[in-house]
Amino acid sequence: MTDGSMTDIYERRESEARSYCRAFPVSFTKAQNATLTDSAGREYTDFLAGCSSLNYGHNDGDMKAALMEHIMADGVAHGLDMHTTAKEDFLNAFERIVLEPRGMDYKFMFTGPTGTNAVEAAMKLARKTTGRETIVAFTNGFHGMTMGALAATGNAGKRGGAGMALSGVVRMPFEGAMEGVDSLSLIREMLANPSSGIDAPAAFLIEPVQGEGGLNAASAEFLKGLQELAREHGALVIMDDIQSGIGRTGPFFSFEGMGVQPDLIPLAKSLSGMGLPFAGLLIRPDLDVWKPAEHNGTFRGNNHAFVTARVALEKFWADDQFQKQTEAKSAFLTERLSKIASHIPGASLKGRGMMQGIDVGCGEMAAAVCATCFQHGLIIETSGAHDEVVKVLAPLTIPQAQFAKGLDVLEAAVQVHRPATKIAAE
Amino acid sequence: MTDGSMTDIYERRESEARSYCRAFPVSFTKAQNATLTDSAGREYTDFLAGCSSLNYGHNDGDMKAALMEHIMADGVAHGLDMHTTAKEDFLNAFERIVLEPRGMDYKFMFTGPTGTNAVEAAMKLARKTTGRETIVAFTNGFHGMTMGALAATGNAGKRGGAGMALSGVVRMPFEGAMEGVDSLSLIREMLANPSSGIDAPAAFLIEPVQGEGGLNAASAEFLKGLQELAREHGALVIMDDIQSGIGRTGPFFSFEGMGVQPDLIPLAKSLSGMGLPFAGLLIRPDLDVWKPAEHNGTFRGNNHAFVTARVALEKFWADDQFQKQTEAKSAFLTERLSKIASHIPGASLKGRGMMQGIDVGCGEMAAAVCATCFQHGLIIETSGAHDEVVKVLAPLTIPQAQFAKGLDVLEAAVQVHRPATKIAAE
Amino acid sequence: MTDGSMTDIYERRESEARSYCRAFPVSFTKAQNATLTDSAGREYTDFLAGCSSLNYGHNDGDMKAALMEHIMADGVAHGLDMHTTAKEDFLNAFERIVLEPRGMDYKFMFTGPTGTNAVEAAMKLARKTTGRETIVAFTNGFHGMTMGALAATGNAGKRGGAGMALSGVVRMPFEGAMEGVDSLSLIREMLANPSSGIDAPAAFLIEPVQGEGGLNAASAEFLKGLQELAREHGALVIMDDIQSGIGRTGPFFSFEGMGVQPDLIPLAKSLSGMGLPFAGLLIRPDLDVWKPAEHNGTFRGNNHAFVTARVALEKFWADDQFQKQTEAKSAFLTERLSKIASHIPGASLKGRGMMQGIDVGCGEMAAAVCATCFQHGLIIETSGAHDEVVKVLAPLTIPQAQFAKGLDVLEAAVQVHRPATKIAAE
Amino acid sequence: MTDGSMTDIYERRESEARSYCRAFPVSFTKAQNATLTDSAGREYTDFLAGCSSLNYGHNDGDMKAALMEHIMADGVAHGLDMHTTAKEDFLNAFERIVLEPRGMDYKFMFTGPTGTNAVEAAMKLARKTTGRETIVAFTNGFHGMTMGALAATGNAGKRGGAGMALSGVVRMPFEGAMEGVDSLSLIREMLANPSSGIDAPAAFLIEPVQGEGGLNAASAEFLKGLQELAREHGALVIMDDIQSGIGRTGPFFSFEGMGVQPDLIPLAKSLSGMGLPFAGLLIRPDLDVWKPAEHNGTFRGNNHAFVTARVALEKFWADDQFQKQTEAKSAFLTERLSKIASHIPGASLKGRGMMQGIDVGCGEMAAAVCATCFQHGLIIETSGAHDEVVKVLAPLTIPQAQFAKGLDVLEAAVQVHRPATKIAAE
Repeated sequence: MTDGSMTDIYERRESEARSYCRAFPVSFTKAQNATLTDSAGREYTDFLAGCSSLNYGHNDGDMKAALMEHIMADGVAHGLDMHTTAKEDFLNAFERIVLEPRGMDYKFMFTGPTGTNAVEAAMKLARKTTGRETIVAFTNGFHGMTMGALAATGNAGKRGGAGMALSGVVRMPFEGAMEGVDSLSLIREMLANPSSGIDAPAAFLIEPVQGEGGLNAASAEFLKGLQELAREHGALVIMDDIQSGIGRTGPFFSFEGMGVQPDLIPLAKSLSGMGLPFAGLLIRPDLDVWKPAEHNGTFRGNNHAFVTARVALEKFWADDQFQKQTEAKSAFLTERLSKIASHIPGASLKGRGMMQGIDVGCGEMAAAVCATCFQHGLIIETSGAHDEVVKVLAPLTIPQAQFAKGLDVLEAAVQVHRPATKIAAE
Repeated sequence: MTDGSMTDIYERRESEARSYCRAFPVSFTKAQNATLTDSAGREYTDFLAGCSSLNYGHNDGDMKAALMEHIMADGVAHGLDMHTTAKEDFLNAFERIVLEPRGMDYKFMFTGPTGTNAVEAAMKLARKTTGRETIVAFTNGFHGMTMGALAATGNAGKRGGAGMALSGVVRMPFEGAMEGVDSLSLIREMLANPSSGIDAPAAFLIEPVQGEGGLNAASAEFLKGLQELAREHGALVIMDDIQSGIGRTGPFFSFEGMGVQPDLIPLAKSLSGMGLPFAGLLIRPDLDVWKPAEHNGTFRGNNHAFVTARVALEKFWADDQFQKQTEAKSAFLTERLSKIASHIPGASLKGRGMMQGIDVGCGEMAAAVCATCFQHGLIIETSGAHDEVVKVLAPLTIPQAQFAKGLDVLEAAVQVHRPATKIAAE
Repeated sequence: MTDGSMTDIYERRESEARSYCRAFPVSFTKAQNATLTDSAGREYTDFLAGCSSLNYGHNDGDMKAALMEHIMADGVAHGLDMHTTAKEDFLNAFERIVLEPRGMDYKFMFTGPTGTNAVEAAMKLARKTTGRETIVAFTNGFHGMTMGALAATGNAGKRGGAGMALSGVVRMPFEGAMEGVDSLSLIREMLANPSSGIDAPAAFLIEPVQGEGGLNAASAEFLKGLQELAREHGALVIMDDIQSGIGRTGPFFSFEGMGVQPDLIPLAKSLSGMGLPFAGLLIRPDLDVWKPAEHNGTFRGNNHAFVTARVALEKFWADDQFQKQTEAKSAFLTERLSKIASHIPGASLKGRGMMQGIDVGCGEMAAAVCATCFQHGLIIETSGAHDEVVKVLAPLTIPQAQFAKGLDVLEAAVQVHRPATKIAAE
Repeated sequence: MTDGSMTDIYERRESEARSYCRAFPVSFTKAQNATLTDSAGREYTDFLAGCSSLNYGHNDGDMKAALMEHIMADGVAHGLDMHTTAKEDFLNAFERIVLEPRGMDYKFMFTGPTGTNAVEAAMKLARKTTGRETIVAFTNGFHGMTMGALAATGNAGKRGGAGMALSGVVRMPFEGAMEGVDSLSLIREMLANPSSGIDAPAAFLIEPVQGEGGLNAASAEFLKGLQELAREHGALVIMDDIQSGIGRTGPFFSFEGMGVQPDLIPLAKSLSGMGLPFAGLLIRPDLDVWKPAEHNGTFRGNNHAFVTARVALEKFWADDQFQKQTEAKSAFLTERLSKIASHIPGASLKGRGMMQGIDVGCGEMAAAVCATCFQHGLIIETSGAHDEVVKVLAPLTIPQAQFAKGLDVLEAAVQVHRPATKIAAE
């Protein structure tokens, strides 16, 4: 196989919808922790981590071992939603390691194995239980590509793909999204005014940190205020922790310690631990009014994912070591990004924990930085409404030296592309 | 672990949405080809096959071996939509083994790894390319649970789960669905009448055999007529071969030899070969007008599935042996079911190929038959608007003796539950 | 004023939406009973009657007198929905002359003074009282141009004017609309099948005779069957008698004597008697759950219309003379149209009562016939999905001689335009 | 007739939707300019004026005379949309008296004779011409009760009457609606952000003064800013001047002199001059892309209204005397209301021109004030999301003495109901 033929098959046969492969036009063969290796043997440091699906890195040894043992023993791979040993073990581990220590009481719904499916299940349940249709979603929110979740997604390009109007969602500004506007006050006033034209909402649907929308991080005050508003108006809070959860900001859930108790929590991405398709919805028990199979899906029983997900919980969350390591790495990241950002006039830091980035001011420059990084073996992507944020989403397990080196590459790329005026000024 | 504890964790923690596990209240541990083994070591014959996700049976040895080799070598597990060796090999195999021999020219879109996601992508593309909103779907159709696909799904219980109105879809009777009505003529007249109130459709969305809706099988005449109507009215044909495809009726696609060339073909379920989450959309090349990432999804790069899917193609579809075996088994199935159906007054055979069943006239009886089967070690489920069809969905690879024995169990169960009047009449 | 200047002002200033004036390009000045007079003094017989808004002819002497007396005495013209003597007198007359003799018990809702507004009020009330959204409307139905009613209107051109998708309505074939299809059976089967994809309806919305859709007249059996189905499924029947009611088919309501008791009856057009804007909704008393002003409208108190409407009731409906006259004229019309239709191969009679016409087979011919009629002083229009029905909608009060003469003009026009083949055959 | 029987017929036969009659439980018989007379001969001063439908007062002598002459001469009353002398005369007058002197170039569309119908026509046309669906409407906006216009109306009670979700409209705060929020900036930022989730709008739909929503008056800066935003984003401006236009604020259009050129202007209420049902849509000529009858309506040809509307234009708008008188009365009104408001702590003046009122802080007090006014022969109503604004909507033609006396009644009523704390403080 040559590079030529590789290109051929994708051009001949893969849909134009493909995207990341356009920015990283090589073929990857192997992956270990934070390192990807292409078909020519070249190594890359992964600061994308499957958009936060690989918080524990690629091919964790313990997960691999458990999965191979499962396969070798003819463990059930596909079981619809039948009981299996793997599912049972996962549920027990989730209860024991995640829920109980946090004093959280939720039912786990195995939705179809995609984040969008978990979000759709949450939206349905919010509408069913409240008898209302309107979901309040936020500017720059990203919740998925199927019609229900897409209605809640802000991105115009993605929305345009629907080919028809998207309904059932009202949009409010995320915290800090509109200059000079206190978003929470605005929402409060809009809901308080019976002639505002905003119908009583079934739920607020919000990401604690907007992974695709530019690493906007909501404060505890904002999330608590939203929860209070929700309670006051008989609405639910759906906390979409798909990209921000499973340790990405430090704790298992990104909203831990913020004083909020979401009613519904869609999870996906790093839930399986190893990047296998797996998603779920945590449901406040009294809201779990589903009739059997009222929302279903063929692959809601991905037992391979149950196996690796259980290992991930046991390995990384049995005590607080992993969270502390992440917090240390996050502090390091903040420090490095602050310095890097200082090279660019007007640039600012975005996000929190291990999902931080730099708003470089425009998409062109962010793209140029990422392209230069790739030339130097670093896989990194942008985020934001104008793709103006260079986003660091390294595996949480990345070795410190590799992490530092990756940030060196990023810093060098930023220096290459920093505006001439800045250079002149120095 | 005791049965008690098993029950506990599911009751405590799994959402009420769970369903199959209620009919089969055991915990499965292992699975090989058509045999499932529960935690107590009891064996079951699988006539459900993951709702046609396991056409090649559980844990095919060659797929297992290839997958374990891939994992062992740190092959990429999750790659977003980046190029990987596994993806490339799959695409090459799909082109060489599926498309070229059939003279089919399609682009492959890696959608999120669920059937509903592939259907949503198809609906979006139909709307985008035609500039129209209305999708014509059919009575008893089942296309998925996310809001776009759910609008096209007929089942009232599933629709009710949405909690809001479903839009963009107009409903027409499937072939033979309404007594005394020629469905094709009706659709033709409705579309021909500019005052019918049926807006010009973007597409017809149809399953060649309705897997969930009662094993209703469309004739070649109907599908061809529909395609002609579509061409005439500037609409597309979306042939949902998710449950009926990948060999289930004999050929790779269920509509082969019927004289139709669908514009869009959603695939999922048995696509990965081993029950791993994988879905895709075949797109007529000139309709592939997606902008990069206009429809995307985190798990659209399930590389484990690419590995097993490739092996499945190479092993089962390199020549026509597998198809011939399936046809032989299908004939055997027809023969056995005819005999079994004869025990029940008014019962009739439904479906074709290896997705056949018996309409026993009412859901209560069908449920009773399935429950008795389960007591005798046979996993089998119902289908249809009233769950009135006992559906045989065995793996295509089931050994003949096990197949026959499973049908013996079914026959015995039917005899237990056949109506008293029938017994009296004998 | 010259013809030139007349054309000028309309071309300069009136929207392109104007329509009838294109077919009848003169300016009318006066109108008395069935005769219109243009600005040049030329007289025309009116077989259009304001699309059934002038069932009592133009400028009935008694209505004029009462209206002038009211104006002269400074009677309230506009009263929002405040009580006025004129409103009270109308309501008393409606109760005494319309409701009581027919044993009908309804509340009268003064909606905005347009048919579409009355239909929207009915659709809202059906949805509110049933908690369901879907309204079943029929092929070729015409119910109005505002978004709610337009969703129920079948005509593609009208629907296209919305500029967006129309929702909340499911379409079923009107009686006899689809060749070889028993519409009632089809609807019954669709509603009985829980997987049909047709959500439980709030109401059936139907015109007893489709005035715009081609003069399709429903039979008593069809309407009764529909009512039974509605009762069975907890849905309402909205009988849109806007064009067919107020004596047009003989009795006050077009469905009298058919054994049906509609739940909601929108009325408009001839309700005011003199063509003044006035519409209302008859509501089964237990369904009258409106909160004050929950549906309102500035002109729901057109007191001029109340005055003329009362006079119309007192003059024409105090006994059965008027109905008998209409029935006699209807019989005459049937006889004449039968003869006229016999000139055209394949032509057929449509409609009933004084809303009958001839389906001449194609819109071009129908248009040609109407144009020729206009040249000979007869104003007549077409109806139907292809404008293929030449529709006679004369005032019910038209003098017999003028009626006969108008039909002579029609017959002559038909003979001019009858197909050559027919002539050759003679 | 006794009061008892009067009550009876309304309770027996009029729908519960009736509203104003509940606040004013008498039966009106006559009306002259600003005076209504009930069936007992009692006189009332009208500060409601048909919600601004009677800007020229009740039963203007010249309009009456012209209308009676028209009726006497058998002038066409109902003409669908055929050319009539009355229509032609109206159009000529509208061109000569309204459009030309203001340098305005618009087409006039005769919609159904209700404001909601004109708004629906505008919304359709905006969607048709832009190919977009979203209409941006504003908090507290009121545009009508049919489904299209209702979607743009803010009032929760009215919206709830729909019985289903309302679509196609996005809501933004009116100028000053949200404390501390610059509405225009917010809208600008929302539209500028491609990930805001606000789809590109077809139009902004706004009332220059919100008649029902609490007499909120937009500034020239706001309206101009909105127009600029619209131009920038390819959207139209629909200026709903139904309640605020036809002289209510002084000039013919309420937005005159504010530097805006709306693309579409719905008119109704006082358009006919005498309170007869009449509505229309002014269309920027290049946007007049309607196909014939693409939006139609039976009563779009209310010739009686054409007659009175023409007289109104000729009598009141041939020179600037009427506007100057209104401005003088407006100044007087401002002065009196300021004084009256000073009796109530926290009360504030709302509105402009002859549509001003006092926000008394709560709906209960406003209702009490209006009830007391009615006891003293003054008909006056409330406005606002909480009905907290006592609204003065007197005929513009009200004699100065009667106007002053009515305001005296209002002042006295306010003094009766002013909060005790205020009294104590004095």
